[in-house]
Amino acid sequence: MSDIARLAGVSTATVSRALNKSPLINEETRTRIEQLAKSLNYSINVGAQNLRLKQNRTVAVVVPFDSVTRQHLSDPFFLGILGSIADALTDRGYDMLLTRVSADELDTAAQIYDTGRAIGVILIGQWRHHDQLNQMAARRVPIVVWGAQIPQQLYLTVGSDNLAGGRLATEHLLQKGRRRIAFFGDVLLPEVADRFEGYRQALRDFQIPFDEKLVVPAVFTEEGGRNAVRTLLERKLVFDGLFACSDLLAMTAINSFREIGMTVPEDVAVVGYDDIELARYFHPALTTVRQPIAAAGEALVAAVLSLADARPSVPVLLQTELIARASS
Amino acid sequence: MSDIARLAGVSTATVSRALNKSPLINEETRTRIEQLAKSLNYSINVGAQNLRLKQNRTVAVVVPFDSVTRQHLSDPFFLGILGSIADALTDRGYDMLLTRVSADELDTAAQIYDTGRAIGVILIGQWRHHDQLNQMAARRVPIVVWGAQIPQQLYLTVGSDNLAGGRLATEHLLQKGRRRIAFFGDVLLPEVADRFEGYRQALRDFQIPFDEKLVVPAVFTEEGGRNAVRTLLERKLVFDGLFACSDLLAMTAINSFREIGMTVPEDVAVVGYDDIELARYFHPALTTVRQPIAAAGEALVAAVLSLADARPSVPVLLQTELIARASS
Repeated sequence: MSDIARLAGVSTATVSRALNKSPLINEETRTRIEQLAKSLNYSINVGAQNLRLKQNRTVAVVVPFDSVTRQHLSDPFFLGILGSIADALTDRGYDMLLTRVSADELDTAAQIYDTGRAIGVILIGQWRHHDQLNQMAARRVPIVVWGAQIPQQLYLTVGSDNLAGGRLATEHLLQKGRRRIAFFGDVLLPEVADRFEGYRQALRDFQIPFDEKLVVPAVFTEEGGRNAVRTLLERKLVFDGLFACSDLLAMTAINSFREIGMTVPEDVAVVGYDDIELARYFHPALTTVRQPIAAAGEALVAAVLSLADARPSVPVLLQTELIARASS
Repeated sequence: MSDIARLAGVSTATVSRALNKSPLINEETRTRIEQLAKSLNYSINVGAQNLRLKQNRTVAVVVPFDSVTRQHLSDPFFLGILGSIADALTDRGYDMLLTRVSADELDTAAQIYDTGRAIGVILIGQWRHHDQLNQMAARRVPIVVWGAQIPQQLYLTVGSDNLAGGRLATEHLLQKGRRRIAFFGDVLLPEVADRFEGYRQALRDFQIPFDEKLVVPAVFTEEGGRNAVRTLLERKLVFDGLFACSDLLAMTAINSFREIGMTVPEDVAVVGYDDIELARYFHPALTTVRQPIAAAGEALVAAVLSLADARPSVPVLLQTELIARASS
């Protein structure tokens, strides 16, 4: 700044005021100083300025990791959500600060806000962190969580309608004449619990008895679908349909069925969940329940900016949609 | 801070020194003040502190967008790279500031560094920005670019060995007895140009004449593969192999072939590029050239931290590998 002051023949205070667009500086001087600054490739220290002027335009996105497995960011649905949040922030002129914190130390997420590095936090991965999230919300950290609404919830969620999604998937299989429909998923996760409830409601509506042996716990990893198929086969049950709680589970299950000579959809009709980019390119193209990824990014960003602005916000439940393709 | 000073019976300057771990404050006082601060849920303003102490632990990742199409972040390979950079930064205790800037205003990427918001920049999407990238490097912005090394390059690149990758793909098809191998890709992009050179070298080694009519320009979008197949068919050529410069191109091409009754690999053997997560789940499972995504994140992060530290850095060329599966 002293270089500019010397060249412009003014004080450094005047340069500072001019670059901060102070009304105390007349336009001619301001323009001259701005041009000098530009020619010297001088950038205002926006970071420091943000902190002073509270004009921070950064939103933190936190994806907790399990402290034991330290699972990497590879799930295609989560990566898609991150992309859509980045797009929604970009459209509004905001940046995204991506932080991964240990699930054991979720409070770290609040520090990003406390320390002024971001004006709010979007957390992806509600999982089993309900209590910690409630504590943060009670401390008035502007935090929005991608996930399901569950009882005694103080934090704001944006999620898709998992109950309706579970119903859609199951009703579709029932309408296709399937009566023995397996369910793959981890019902301890709030979102999966809602999908499972939708599955049970649809069975009830069609007066099909619920058989708990058709429910196989499955984790959202590439081995999840394969292991779940093995478990299902070991139970030696009759089944003609499968509702898998993610597209990756559905795809890996279909590949396992193919290996043992079961055809999809003839022997077993399969419906996934998410509608990731590649579901439509899979063979057979995957029937699935679409979670609206672009709308999810928009809604998460709108909600966190609203909280950051101390405006009232309500939980958002995005509509899910059945996309019927060749696997069912 | 004045609250803590009052409760601790010391001056605010002492509180400030204690929280900044100044050696001027004895340990007993420091511990007492830290505990008070903790009980008051007081966080040091790390953002401001970073700027003062130059202990910023944030790296910017910039993905330029085309100002006309404003293409969204949906390409599975790029999302995978972003995930692997995030993982590599997390492992080192750094955060990632994701910014999208217009390709017309790539200088904005430098401002993130100039303004102290990040200690360095990783840019994904070399495309046709060679000159602008050179300008930034000349200004000594610590910037690392994912892409190919090209002549008169001042900026540091980390990329995979595209020339070897192109050779691997083409040699594999030639070894499978294919002689009329189509090439799908945009040879104006530096990385694709290298893959194309590998394709030509492999043909030369096998003494197979190069036929430019087998080269079809194709963009990396979901319609790219479909359009390229249509163009190829309109040319009414004989072909028995295809090297597509991305997995998405290869998958969409295979689906187009299937629709017109051509079987893969019998009628046309197909090799993709990238080895995205879902290549192995595709049917037929996709033969492809693997770009080492996890190693890419590691190498990009190591390079940018090295530059930020003013340590010498050299371009990195990561090894590519042929993954033979059912499509060839």
